[in-house]
Amino acid sequence: MNPRKSRRDVAHHLAPAPLFVLVRPQMGENIGASARAMLNFGLSGLRLVAPRDGWPSEKAGAMASGASIIIDETRVFEDTGAALKDCQYVVATTARPRDVVLPVLTPGEAAIAMKARIARGETCAVLFGGERAGLNNEDIACADAIVSIPVNPAFASLNLAQAALVMAYEWGQTGAQLASTTGEGAALTDMAPPAPREDFDRFFAHLAQELEDAGYFYPPEKRTTMERNLKVAFQRAGLTENEVRALRGVIKALAKAGNQ
Amino acid sequence: MNPRKSRRDVAHHLAPAPLFVLVRPQMGENIGASARAMLNFGLSGLRLVAPRDGWPSEKAGAMASGASIIIDETRVFEDTGAALKDCQYVVATTARPRDVVLPVLTPGEAAIAMKARIARGETCAVLFGGERAGLNNEDIACADAIVSIPVNPAFASLNLAQAALVMAYEWGQTGAQLASTTGEGAALTDMAPPAPREDFDRFFAHLAQELEDAGYFYPPEKRTTMERNLKVAFQRAGLTENEVRALRGVIKALAKAGNQ
Repeated sequence: MNPRKSRRDVAHHLAPAPLFVLVRPQMGENIGASARAMLNFGLSGLRLVAPRDGWPSEKAGAMASGASIIIDETRVFEDTGAALKDCQYVVATTARPRDVVLPVLTPGEAAIAMKARIARGETCAVLFGGERAGLNNEDIACADAIVSIPVNPAFASLNLAQAALVMAYEWGQTGAQLASTTGEGAALTDMAPPAPREDFDRFFAHLAQELEDAGYFYPPEKRTTMERNLKVAFQRAGLTENEVRALRGVIKALAKAGNQ
Repeated sequence: MNPRKSRRDVAHHLAPAPLFVLVRPQMGENIGASARAMLNFGLSGLRLVAPRDGWPSEKAGAMASGASIIIDETRVFEDTGAALKDCQYVVATTARPRDVVLPVLTPGEAAIAMKARIARGETCAVLFGGERAGLNNEDIACADAIVSIPVNPAFASLNLAQAALVMAYEWGQTGAQLASTTGEGAALTDMAPPAPREDFDRFFAHLAQELEDAGYFYPPEKRTTMERNLKVAFQRAGLTENEVRALRGVIKALAKAGNQ
């Protein structure tokens, strides 16, 4: 029996689950430990954004041990937006309250929301920040919701692998929980799914460009914040593909009218 | 400001919480990581049974970093029974089903049960097995219930520190959950608390001695299993101090009658 094939089976027999996206992770050991935590609770899709020490990582492989199937198939991206292109619902784990207007969920609530969406065929992802600096506001602005793990305010120091374990564990809990929930899962079934992030991002880049051309971003030093706040507001709407298409039509129409 | 005092405050301002008891832990790093996980979710009482590399441990201290207040106050015992003497309700974390007849709880159920008992002033503990061999049947026979963390059956490999994190996290969740629960918490309020483990153990040793003298344990090679099964059955009753005292009277009376 081919041991590699057998390892692959471990992952390929898993039910669909959220992707974990580690943004600027530093230590290979934490990437490996996150992979182990994932496989323990039935997750297998791991993506990295700009890992400090490059990829592949010997330390990640050693720490992952039996979960090396996840490490072997890990994909690496240059920036957070690129890693989320095909995703339809994204939650960002962060302890600190930020000046980004997004709903804040508990890990359990986030897991249940993702379970319902995945059951409908949506691609979901959980963003985790690297060891030193966590997620920045630009990363968080790629998300539909913030997940805050409630910790002792006098000692809030979960590391990357511990945060991944908590989220993986809560995902594992949803098998039992979803049957009894009447929350977002039930409410979702009549809604069309959100557009893939790639479509949304193209729409928003179009909008931002038109606003730039129109001199909307003033004063210039506020531009980053103004653009981010606008993006987050659109994001909270959970725009469908049709809505994104319609909005691009709106922008085109307005821009054309303004140029005449 | 005295930094040591300030660290102590972190732990001393915490509400009462379960003790974590690590049985035959091997790596100092995992003891330190468990301490960090505990403090993140408001727990501080750590006990060790026969740590492989002795105590104190430099590696545990380094890994615990900001949670060194827990490491400084960690107590070490020779065996599991000694570590649990003052405990009134004990849960044992173990993945494998064992031939020990105890109720099996989820981590969340265990946390809620302990929360209710601690609110009544009981001392509760969670047993964790060491890295290589986990808890043995003798350790588990010291518990009132088994806690099983539901993991991917094709990859069940949570390490000691990860199991401690899951249990600490679920303890942290009880703050919000208890208010709405109508489970064991509500049912408990009319019951007298169980006797401390020390009283129970003295009672059971008394019983076992009398049974030994009476030739009850036959054939001899079955003795260990027979005694353990008996102990677990009594343990599931959650005997109060009065009941333990009464039962000791029963044993005395029977033994005396038998000797006549």
